[in-house]
Amino acid sequence: MPHPLDTFFAPDSIALIGASRDQEKIPGRLLSMLRKNEYPGRIYPINPNYGDIDGLKCYKTIAEVGAPVDLAVVIIPARAVLGALEECAAAGVKNCVIISSGFAEEGGDSAAMQDKIVEIAKRTGMRISGPNAEGFMSEVQKVAATFSPTVDFKPGHVPLVATRRRVGIVAQSGGIGFAIKHRAKAIGVAISYVVSAGNESDLGAGEFMEYLVQDASTDVIMLFIEGIRDVEKFTAAARRAAEVGKPVIVTKVGRSGAGQRGAASHTASMAGWSAAYDAVFAKYGFIVSNDMDEAVAIAAVLASNPLPKGDRVAVLTVSGGAGIWGADTVSMQGLQVPALSEGIQSEIKKWMPSYGAAGNPVDVTAQGVSSGGLQKSIELFDASVEVDATLVIMSFSSETRMPFKESELKPVIAAQNKPVVCYSYTLPSDFARRELAKCGVVILTGLTHAGVAMRRLLDYSKFKLAPPADAAGLPARDLSAHLKAPTLSEADSKALLRDAGIALPDEVLVGERGALDAAIEKVGFPLVMKIQSPDIAHKSEVGGVWVNIMAKGEAFSAYRELLERAQKHRPNATIQGVLVSPMAKKGVEIIIGTLNDATFGPMVMVGLGGITTELFRDVTYRPAPVSAAEAEMMLGELKASPLLRGFRGVAKADVAALSKLISEVSMLAARLKESVSEIELNPVLVHGEGQGVTIVDALVVRAK
Amino acid sequence: MPHPLDTFFAPDSIALIGASRDQEKIPGRLLSMLRKNEYPGRIYPINPNYGDIDGLKCYKTIAEVGAPVDLAVVIIPARAVLGALEECAAAGVKNCVIISSGFAEEGGDSAAMQDKIVEIAKRTGMRISGPNAEGFMSEVQKVAATFSPTVDFKPGHVPLVATRRRVGIVAQSGGIGFAIKHRAKAIGVAISYVVSAGNESDLGAGEFMEYLVQDASTDVIMLFIEGIRDVEKFTAAARRAAEVGKPVIVTKVGRSGAGQRGAASHTASMAGWSAAYDAVFAKYGFIVSNDMDEAVAIAAVLASNPLPKGDRVAVLTVSGGAGIWGADTVSMQGLQVPALSEGIQSEIKKWMPSYGAAGNPVDVTAQGVSSGGLQKSIELFDASVEVDATLVIMSFSSETRMPFKESELKPVIAAQNKPVVCYSYTLPSDFARRELAKCGVVILTGLTHAGVAMRRLLDYSKFKLAPPADAAGLPARDLSAHLKAPTLSEADSKALLRDAGIALPDEVLVGERGALDAAIEKVGFPLVMKIQSPDIAHKSEVGGVWVNIMAKGEAFSAYRELLERAQKHRPNATIQGVLVSPMAKKGVEIIIGTLNDATFGPMVMVGLGGITTELFRDVTYRPAPVSAAEAEMMLGELKASPLLRGFRGVAKADVAALSKLISEVSMLAARLKESVSEIELNPVLVHGEGQGVTIVDALVVRAK
Repeated sequence: MPHPLDTFFAPDSIALIGASRDQEKIPGRLLSMLRKNEYPGRIYPINPNYGDIDGLKCYKTIAEVGAPVDLAVVIIPARAVLGALEECAAAGVKNCVIISSGFAEEGGDSAAMQDKIVEIAKRTGMRISGPNAEGFMSEVQKVAATFSPTVDFKPGHVPLVATRRRVGIVAQSGGIGFAIKHRAKAIGVAISYVVSAGNESDLGAGEFMEYLVQDASTDVIMLFIEGIRDVEKFTAAARRAAEVGKPVIVTKVGRSGAGQRGAASHTASMAGWSAAYDAVFAKYGFIVSNDMDEAVAIAAVLASNPLPKGDRVAVLTVSGGAGIWGADTVSMQGLQVPALSEGIQSEIKKWMPSYGAAGNPVDVTAQGVSSGGLQKSIELFDASVEVDATLVIMSFSSETRMPFKESELKPVIAAQNKPVVCYSYTLPSDFARRELAKCGVVILTGLTHAGVAMRRLLDYSKFKLAPPADAAGLPARDLSAHLKAPTLSEADSKALLRDAGIALPDEVLVGERGALDAAIEKVGFPLVMKIQSPDIAHKSEVGGVWVNIMAKGEAFSAYRELLERAQKHRPNATIQGVLVSPMAKKGVEIIIGTLNDATFGPMVMVGLGGITTELFRDVTYRPAPVSAAEAEMMLGELKASPLLRGFRGVAKADVAALSKLISEVSMLAARLKESVSEIELNPVLVHGEGQGVTIVDALVVRAK
Repeated sequence: MPHPLDTFFAPDSIALIGASRDQEKIPGRLLSMLRKNEYPGRIYPINPNYGDIDGLKCYKTIAEVGAPVDLAVVIIPARAVLGALEECAAAGVKNCVIISSGFAEEGGDSAAMQDKIVEIAKRTGMRISGPNAEGFMSEVQKVAATFSPTVDFKPGHVPLVATRRRVGIVAQSGGIGFAIKHRAKAIGVAISYVVSAGNESDLGAGEFMEYLVQDASTDVIMLFIEGIRDVEKFTAAARRAAEVGKPVIVTKVGRSGAGQRGAASHTASMAGWSAAYDAVFAKYGFIVSNDMDEAVAIAAVLASNPLPKGDRVAVLTVSGGAGIWGADTVSMQGLQVPALSEGIQSEIKKWMPSYGAAGNPVDVTAQGVSSGGLQKSIELFDASVEVDATLVIMSFSSETRMPFKESELKPVIAAQNKPVVCYSYTLPSDFARRELAKCGVVILTGLTHAGVAMRRLLDYSKFKLAPPADAAGLPARDLSAHLKAPTLSEADSKALLRDAGIALPDEVLVGERGALDAAIEKVGFPLVMKIQSPDIAHKSEVGGVWVNIMAKGEAFSAYRELLERAQKHRPNATIQGVLVSPMAKKGVEIIIGTLNDATFGPMVMVGLGGITTELFRDVTYRPAPVSAAEAEMMLGELKASPLLRGFRGVAKADVAALSKLISEVSMLAARLKESVSEIELNPVLVHGEGQGVTIVDALVVRAK
């Protein structure tokens, strides 16, 4: 199906605004790289100073071209860019890539120039990428619209292609985007596109990603993100990728304080809060990788293998030590390396010497290689019901000899039902890479990366897009009357939640001593009493909580004492009274929270409560709202989730009730995103299965 | 200083038992590799079938040589090996390497042959490496006594050497040992020795390591371990390495169940319990790495840099995106990337364009390269008091251009005071590697590995060998009378501990109802009562614990009830009575344990108690005994250690008292290693600073 950006990525004609004869400089390199990479369309160099460049007619202005131009690559000083863009638009140019720097990343007047670029794009409909971009490369249509040195190659260089499927790369750093391509191509991963996003005046990473999601020549997407600006396009593309089952591997940087400082001065982007990014990535089943070689290894394995159906790995090697290391590595990723049955072992033993090992790891030894045992084992595992994937661990350093015969291995790989991942413990020779590429096999050089890639493949194969939240689960009500203070007291917060339709224990706010008797009557012993004030956020800090009250006398002492303590510690606080609540049944302590992220909007968080968990930072986030099913997926991500599933004598908790509550709170946060900045339920006690949950304390913060 | 193994590693003469003319087979390769690598000593091929091989006289037997032989390399069928060894010993050969396979790794009669090898070594004093070994390579003395393909090279190959210092490798897998060398040399790390240990009939990994520790040409040691057999030599060498400050990077495999299965059938070694290995590694400050490229990166950085004095890193780049990624990566390792002062920023700004960034990450941009800004920045950071190390992040893919001038960078690196770690986000060209090697710089290609290496350097620089345990701290007493049952009851366990000199609360074991009054009198309310029986290990499972008893009546009910419950749940248990203890003050829950490891002997463990911690497996081990100082180091390793140091309103705990207790228990376990297999104190409550600890429950298990 045609796409509006087809003329960008596969232009029939390219104008080079600022073309130059000097190949030592970027403008000159752009032309020479376009031609060296055999761009098949028409090229129009534009520069008033030349009559021709390198045998091509050079035009004084874009208007002079007099023919349709799909793409203009702009590489002239920043101050001349706006004029050039107007001329391009007037000449009917469909798309521009602005390579020039000196805009938003410099701030001040330069940033104002970028605003004008946005305005031109909006007004004229011409699509604009950059400024401050490194351009893009289409390997499919041979468009090297970039000055990246990685699109250059030595004469006589034959590309190495091992994968049947292609990887497309969108990067908010040209240097990194093209470096990913450089590394991927070096191990034989076929590439569709690399596109650098630059300052994203008009076209952004989200829209580029959207293009790759719908692009038939792209099978796997890699993203390098500093901070997403076209958020709606990005999340729509992410959802679409999940729907069509196109895997996305993402690297998000600017996670640390120093990284955020760097991002601000780099492409003038705000790196944002990385937990929110991770929440969005998790929602759409993105594969997150923070290491380039690991990300490339995952892409390579995805581009050359079917997805696994289970977690059982056969480790196949000719080196005992390397096999053990391989078994450890995949085990460390939570994959199984099962002992093989006698039946399969006796098959394997036919082609290995007596000192080999068939147990898994399977060591066919060097002798097993000459007998063809390696490809036979791969074939055996591919057909076996005992394993779901094979990790082949070899030394591929030889420049002359191969442990496989192409004629035997190629059909096995061509018909593979399961992933076959190949790792060389020595550095592989170019000869070995090319020989295995003929069979469709990529050689990985990082064993940990191979193990991680196998794990991510399994995770991806199991990923399902969660069903949307059921809006009918929580009636829509006007709750604005509750938001009478910047921070609501516990009682006010709970009143809002109750009014919103969320179940809470029966509690009584006692504003005067005389009402205490009735409250006790209603709530019943044992009970808890808590001071209430919109000015006291942390009640325990002022001694404002009294638990396990068993008798009337104690309740009256508590009432007096709580008021006195509040008066002493916060003499200026507005005191609403004392909240009388039933003592909650025991349960697993959970914290549920919401907040509004500057990039992605409302988010819901869940974590295990209590001091130890705080220490281990065991929490997870999702964009709000979430359905109960998605909430349950969140709970599964917690390291401490076994506590909810029943662990060491602790009974299974009511995960269904907890998931329902998380969903309700998330819907509330999404609806109230304009008026509420934060909801925190802490703790929520999750009781045994079928026994529900108790919201013990709650806090609602009004939006500023 | 001369060393007995000098004649092994630097032999003046080598006999090849089983030499062959066929270079396609291993025996033939051994001779050709020795000569190709320019072995400078005398070579005596031994084979009754040839008169000469490749121009060298060939001897029928070793006896025929008639000259001293330092090393015999044995590569003949397994059944002929014993005879050959006897002949070697008779001829006065000093050392043998047995390459042949078919011994302990096969089991049965073949294993018995290996026992005979051990016997020959013991009887004759001839030192023997292997069988089933891949031999060794000395890069220093040009001895390639191995058939590893990695000692082969293309004609005209010029080795790449970037490091001033050398790395020595000991591997219990020849394939892996030589693969490590292959990867290390590829990035320019200078090697001293690689030695594969094989089945370790006589010479083992521990003794080889000991050689490298004392060897002046080895500055960094890399170990690949499946399971240590010469344990005493290994730990002595480990201690010596720590004392002389020679870093050891270790990979231990056989950590998973499948890995252990693999190790058993590989070199017939028991992979053992990896937690014990990690405990020994931690004691001696080993750098543990489970990934080959990571381990090589750490070795490369150690071999080419001084140790850092602090954790502050300057990230220096020409690519904004890569700089942000670098800042994130080192931050994720717990290193600091501090914002730089105005002073240093204004210095840097002199050599970068306006769109560069001087804040850290420092992006001098491509333009900053041409102005020489990169080496100037490196020099500036090396002299600055604001950072402790520099991470340089560049693209080194060009085959023709370098961002540094050798004449300018070389003196900076030669005079460096701080680590300078260099990473290329594109794959570096051979040209770039060689140019930077001239300056003494290794280019790393894994950013995560670079970050990990910087972290490990810092950790290593801070490591101090712990002082030994103070035996006088716990008087030596005969405790054998206490070990009257396979598993001691709590009361009996505590009696043993008390007798050993460990402080415990005053408690009374009440064997008959009439004694309860006196016990209450002595202990005082509130108190705890617990059923006591050597047959009931888990008291709470039978409802055998009653806490918070406040009154006499309750105590008497508890007494009766506890006995009834025990009778009901364990009718055959021998009941000693009920232990009456004071309710312990609040404290942080800790577990202390000891056990005897099959490889390394007694071990002490400490961890945070309670259910959450069990979930996070937050425990640490050390070989027993430990001093209080070493125990405190253990506590520092716990993820939850902030809980002891004061966290979120929890007061600082009495770490000194806890450390003293751990030390005492460890000394006890070490002394009783023949008679006690396990001691467990769980929980131990650690009170506020200066308020000591309380051992709440204790269990002693007799050795079988």
